[in-house]
Amino acid sequence: MNLVDLQTPCLLLDKTRMLANIRKLQDHLKAFEITLRPHVKTAKCPEIVNCMFDSPPGPVTVSTLQEAEQFIKAGYRDILYAVGIAPDKMERIVSLGRTGVDLSVILDNIESAHAVARISQKYNHRVPVLIEIDSDGHRAGIKDDDPFLIELGKVLHEGGTELRGVMTHAGSAYQHPGQVALRAMAEQERLAVVSAAERLRGSGLPCPVVSVGSTPTATFVEDLSGVTEVRAGVYVFNDLIIAGLGVCEVDEIAISVLATVIGHQHEKGWILVDAGWMAMSRDRGTAIQQVDQGYGLVCNETGEAYDDLIMIDANQEHGILALRSGSRASTPELPVGTRVRILPNHACATASQFDSYCVLDECNHIQEQWDRFSGW
Amino acid sequence: MNLVDLQTPCLLLDKTRMLANIRKLQDHLKAFEITLRPHVKTAKCPEIVNCMFDSPPGPVTVSTLQEAEQFIKAGYRDILYAVGIAPDKMERIVSLGRTGVDLSVILDNIESAHAVARISQKYNHRVPVLIEIDSDGHRAGIKDDDPFLIELGKVLHEGGTELRGVMTHAGSAYQHPGQVALRAMAEQERLAVVSAAERLRGSGLPCPVVSVGSTPTATFVEDLSGVTEVRAGVYVFNDLIIAGLGVCEVDEIAISVLATVIGHQHEKGWILVDAGWMAMSRDRGTAIQQVDQGYGLVCNETGEAYDDLIMIDANQEHGILALRSGSRASTPELPVGTRVRILPNHACATASQFDSYCVLDECNHIQEQWDRFSGW
Repeated sequence: MNLVDLQTPCLLLDKTRMLANIRKLQDHLKAFEITLRPHVKTAKCPEIVNCMFDSPPGPVTVSTLQEAEQFIKAGYRDILYAVGIAPDKMERIVSLGRTGVDLSVILDNIESAHAVARISQKYNHRVPVLIEIDSDGHRAGIKDDDPFLIELGKVLHEGGTELRGVMTHAGSAYQHPGQVALRAMAEQERLAVVSAAERLRGSGLPCPVVSVGSTPTATFVEDLSGVTEVRAGVYVFNDLIIAGLGVCEVDEIAISVLATVIGHQHEKGWILVDAGWMAMSRDRGTAIQQVDQGYGLVCNETGEAYDDLIMIDANQEHGILALRSGSRASTPELPVGTRVRILPNHACATASQFDSYCVLDECNHIQEQWDRFSGW
Repeated sequence: MNLVDLQTPCLLLDKTRMLANIRKLQDHLKAFEITLRPHVKTAKCPEIVNCMFDSPPGPVTVSTLQEAEQFIKAGYRDILYAVGIAPDKMERIVSLGRTGVDLSVILDNIESAHAVARISQKYNHRVPVLIEIDSDGHRAGIKDDDPFLIELGKVLHEGGTELRGVMTHAGSAYQHPGQVALRAMAEQERLAVVSAAERLRGSGLPCPVVSVGSTPTATFVEDLSGVTEVRAGVYVFNDLIIAGLGVCEVDEIAISVLATVIGHQHEKGWILVDAGWMAMSRDRGTAIQQVDQGYGLVCNETGEAYDDLIMIDANQEHGILALRSGSRASTPELPVGTRVRILPNHACATASQFDSYCVLDECNHIQEQWDRFSGW
């Protein structure tokens, strides 16, 4: 099966690029004695995540219980659910954990700690818990020097849960482009979580796991002393945001949306395609970067980027392609019916608009189609 | 079943509000001799679209062939596919049309006209075609005074297709808030398409259908002389963008996302919930309006909005709720585990993140669950 046989819009996965992306981060992290626990929220596809381990299944991170359930079904047994636990999800967590799966949760407050302790006692099942540490003020977590950290640890440890350790995610790395800044963010991430672990241990509490990570910090980290595991997700595909941070090159982006030209507004230099925001997602993550890529960077059918051609605007099922503002390039001739590939701003968001990947080999033949799931 | 039994995040549909929204536009348009052809891209759910007709199935508009196929399966027989046709979709169009379904397409250029003519001849099936008119310069379509309009009509009429008429969508209505501006946009939309129809008829070409529409223009239109049908979609649910245009009130928004509080950053006034952009979508359509609603406006569990509480930021599965900038309201006490409802910026985008609607009656009991489909 070839590209020409596909109905557009559809989601293409360049398997060669994906395998190279996986290898690159694995190779970088080989220098450290840590476990890599990939985040599967980007791919939501066991066939892809199986490629992320030399011998799958390995340890994974999930962002929904739907992901946990789907990966358990696919044979995965060591799962970190890395969104602060809502008390009303605990019954579902315990029923998964009691089947022998190691499913750990995170939290950053006393109310949640009491709730998890109560349910651990109720079912006589010690739910593994990591305390979420706030390393950069961007979202959730308790500061490593917060006086309540020890109290939180005690409620968990003495309340019947398994206090497994601490974790953080320096999400503000996405606002700090460049190797130097990202290396500093990685060190900030490490210091926060190692300091929290030392405080817990200093109070006689267990803290075997010290977990950090994001694709930008994991890519450039130089020191992981005191850290036991690294989480990262989007590196499997990369995207224009990651490229804009200097973490990958544009030709290392492994997914794209195949679209068809449906018309033009010649006097405006517009090319209209049958992929809008329903296909690309509404993610405009590069809008705050040095180079705004609109709704995506346009490539020809075989994946070579046109100079400065981006999707400048999108409606639900229409995309408007044009040269970026200020460009001196000329708009390529793309007659009605021409196929283009559009690289996404944000791989997690764009992939989630589709229910399968069309997997391409090096010759742009479609090897297979891999399903992806969605929902909670 | 009650709200408390639902796992979050999930999509709620207030059926009472939805039925009132449907009735309101129907009542307004009763004054005109036109056909209402609702756009089903918002709901993607036959149970909902059935409510849009006194005696379903009626004529509908679709934005994907998936929608066409699903609504044909649900008994619909009069369908306008309102995205400029890509030549490689024609085989699928013809095979649906040959089952006796009236499936019409739109186009705005000679290449597509020749492609549709060729396939009409090849299968001896006169594909019904509307010429897309550009009434506001926002996207696709040929200007009503473009010299090529007549040539386009001739290629279609003489080439073996069924030239059914003209259509337009004044999408830039979304940049023109207020009744006065939107009434002017409605008149601009009408004039463009009526003028195009007159030119075609003046050249001896048929033009039985003259189609306009969007929720903002349809709501305020005063004159539909020469128009035969009106299309509108989002009115079935309404959303914060529509409210920001002055087209509905906030308490006429029929869908919301149910979420659970998972933590706080008290010193910042942040409340964290388990619904992020994966649930709300990345749509930030109110960012360009007078009142920026962030990723959504927060209500209590029964649907009453808190003063100025919005989702100020979102990650994939985390939402950060806080007072809007400059507010003098005080942040409500919402302990961990509290349920909230979040009204969306853009109903089409938010609904598309879910695979079903939890349908609520007036007492907030869940009457039923309606599936919605996705994909192309």
